[in-house]
Amino acid sequence: MATVTLLQDHQLSPEARAVFDDIRAKRGTDFVNNFWRALAHDPKTLKRTWESAQAVMAPGALDPKVKEMLYIAVSVAHGCSYCIHSHTAAARAKGMTEAEHAELVAIIGMAAETNRLVTALGVPVDDAFLADRADPA
Amino acid sequence: MATVTLLQDHQLSPEARAVFDDIRAKRGTDFVNNFWRALAHDPKTLKRTWESAQAVMAPGALDPKVKEMLYIAVSVAHGCSYCIHSHTAAARAKGMTEAEHAELVAIIGMAAETNRLVTALGVPVDDAFLADRADPA
Amino acid sequence: MATVTLLQDHQLSPEARAVFDDIRAKRGTDFVNNFWRALAHDPKTLKRTWESAQAVMAPGALDPKVKEMLYIAVSVAHGCSYCIHSHTAAARAKGMTEAEHAELVAIIGMAAETNRLVTALGVPVDDAFLADRADPA
Amino acid sequence: MATVTLLQDHQLSPEARAVFDDIRAKRGTDFVNNFWRALAHDPKTLKRTWESAQAVMAPGALDPKVKEMLYIAVSVAHGCSYCIHSHTAAARAKGMTEAEHAELVAIIGMAAETNRLVTALGVPVDDAFLADRADPA
Amino acid sequence: MATVTLLQDHQLSPEARAVFDDIRAKRGTDFVNNFWRALAHDPKTLKRTWESAQAVMAPGALDPKVKEMLYIAVSVAHGCSYCIHSHTAAARAKGMTEAEHAELVAIIGMAAETNRLVTALGVPVDDAFLADRADPA
Amino acid sequence: MATVTLLQDHQLSPEARAVFDDIRAKRGTDFVNNFWRALAHDPKTLKRTWESAQAVMAPGALDPKVKEMLYIAVSVAHGCSYCIHSHTAAARAKGMTEAEHAELVAIIGMAAETNRLVTALGVPVDDAFLADRADPA
Repeated sequence: MATVTLLQDHQLSPEARAVFDDIRAKRGTDFVNNFWRALAHDPKTLKRTWESAQAVMAPGALDPKVKEMLYIAVSVAHGCSYCIHSHTAAARAKGMTEAEHAELVAIIGMAAETNRLVTALGVPVDDAFLADRADPA
Repeated sequence: MATVTLLQDHQLSPEARAVFDDIRAKRGTDFVNNFWRALAHDPKTLKRTWESAQAVMAPGALDPKVKEMLYIAVSVAHGCSYCIHSHTAAARAKGMTEAEHAELVAIIGMAAETNRLVTALGVPVDDAFLADRADPA
Repeated sequence: MATVTLLQDHQLSPEARAVFDDIRAKRGTDFVNNFWRALAHDPKTLKRTWESAQAVMAPGALDPKVKEMLYIAVSVAHGCSYCIHSHTAAARAKGMTEAEHAELVAIIGMAAETNRLVTALGVPVDDAFLADRADPA
Repeated sequence: MATVTLLQDHQLSPEARAVFDDIRAKRGTDFVNNFWRALAHDPKTLKRTWESAQAVMAPGALDPKVKEMLYIAVSVAHGCSYCIHSHTAAARAKGMTEAEHAELVAIIGMAAETNRLVTALGVPVDDAFLADRADPA
Repeated sequence: MATVTLLQDHQLSPEARAVFDDIRAKRGTDFVNNFWRALAHDPKTLKRTWESAQAVMAPGALDPKVKEMLYIAVSVAHGCSYCIHSHTAAARAKGMTEAEHAELVAIIGMAAETNRLVTALGVPVDDAFLADRADPA
Repeated sequence: MATVTLLQDHQLSPEARAVFDDIRAKRGTDFVNNFWRALAHDPKTLKRTWESAQAVMAPGALDPKVKEMLYIAVSVAHGCSYCIHSHTAAARAKGMTEAEHAELVAIIGMAAETNRLVTALGVPVDDAFLADRADPA
């Protein structure tokens, strides 16, 4: 299943190859997963996406393992099976334990449930939750 | 906007009032937000949801602040404005800094983008990402 | 909030007016809700949608109240607040009790939760659930 | 495809085994489907989910067949293929006819269409549809 | 995977066969794809859907290639893999180039990202964007 | 409603101000819409998003009006009311006629309907639609 072919190394344009080289160098492995091979048909989007991913997923105020878990949460809610699999593998590689994974999965389920209860009931936002309620600007 | 009325304290059934009493006691505040007031028409679901929320959101392998951030991530992807507002307030109350919030928001956006790139391209899951590939069972 | 104006009766094209006349006649009320007033800018889609709604929502193997409840379930999962409000009102007009509404809401929440648990875990479909597993064609 | 392995009976913890025993007893069959086998890594969520499922799906104001059909509607809108297959099988086991299934599918499609028409047009909710408009509280 | 069998030509009812005949005649090919074979269990919905598809996708103010690309955009956001594959094939058959496909995919990703940024931040709609702000009606 | 305040010009950091200056210069107007004012709390994401938006939405193989319409399609399917309003305004500013808008809306609705029909029926992808079926790589 794919709407484009997955490019093999010998099929890459020079621009795409440069991104693959950087992915391999930064990750310290020769393995390049299918997402990048599908995206490589469009070197401009490939490059921009790889650069954004590095900017967003780098260690910062949040640690990389938590960032992967947030990525999983979004991917589940969007129903992206590929993304769930790849980021679950990434989270484990960054130290996510099975206990942490179990709690992550339970939160995703619970949030989905209350999200839909709230939506079904049409609950209006409490004033107390508005960030701008006391904004003097 | 609401498909049910928001119950005021004097309108609660005894079963619903008992849950409200517990919410107030556990949270140490008299404030009960609209979600529970809408749900209070159905004391059975009110009670079950409150108990599940406590079981899932309690401190465990993950710390409560991270749990709230995961909740936000799911709620954004499901488009539940109420839930986003209430859990952003809760995350801040549990110590989420503005820098952490900014990173959370950036990850949600980035994940949404790659989720849809992957889906548009129909990328097949790499064997390396399957948990059961080496399962001896 | 709207990306088009809501057409008042005197602003309707003859084609749109004919559909409004039919809506009023079939429903036995002069009230025409905002959905049709927004859609009236495009009489072709207005007419096709009204005809499809009648074909799909007419009494059949399922009774009209259950049909409205199914409509609500889909609308909640799609996050369409307008649709949730209009079809909750319609379901009540067709006899949905508060007890039935409470069960509907609880099922929507429960389904959302297990939907996301399943997706997070990547559970493969059991052979027993495939309609075509024993198809001799 | 899975982010966790599917546990076989001999791999279950005592807590998970107790839930499996209860599933088998209540359902009157030895077959335990993959959802529970994936969830069994986390006995606490396994137990809570099984108990919630029983509470929500039990006969009540709505009959069990209708409950399964509502479950299908939500699962389709969330794009959970596993859930659609398992609950379609369950609905048939509880008496859903092919005519009822056809009407269910048509309603899901119709609701999806009007949900998105409404959202694209930004239609504001009619006052007539608000549950709280005449609330004297 | 399917919740119904895919009907082969010899299994069609006369009503379904008439629709298949029309699909083949209008498209000028003997190939009838799986969507219609699954839908053929319900000749009424089969016929209505085929007629709607023709009405909506016919050349009009927008050219057919652009229409297919819009179809793809919606299908990606809904996570319908089948629809993405079939409409990507259709768009290519109607002249979509690889450069156009690459831009389509990039826009889908970008829109997903900003959609979720906006939702996470709860951004209120600017008055300047309301169609009805200056409506004298 | 907002989870952050909307920054006014005098509240901007120098980094955010530089992006606002560029938005104003490129767009030739002093008006800066709320999206950027909410995002301005995080100058890094503000800058990256503005740069990505320019890269993706620039004239290319597809014309800017069509790009805005694709943006609307995705935004509707994700239920982002803000995005629908802002990009509908943008599409109109770039020449989208009311006839084109009407066709866009009809396609979004039709796609949503068939997306969900396909998902409900679990239709497997036809081999003819696979991009990689004849890939010699």
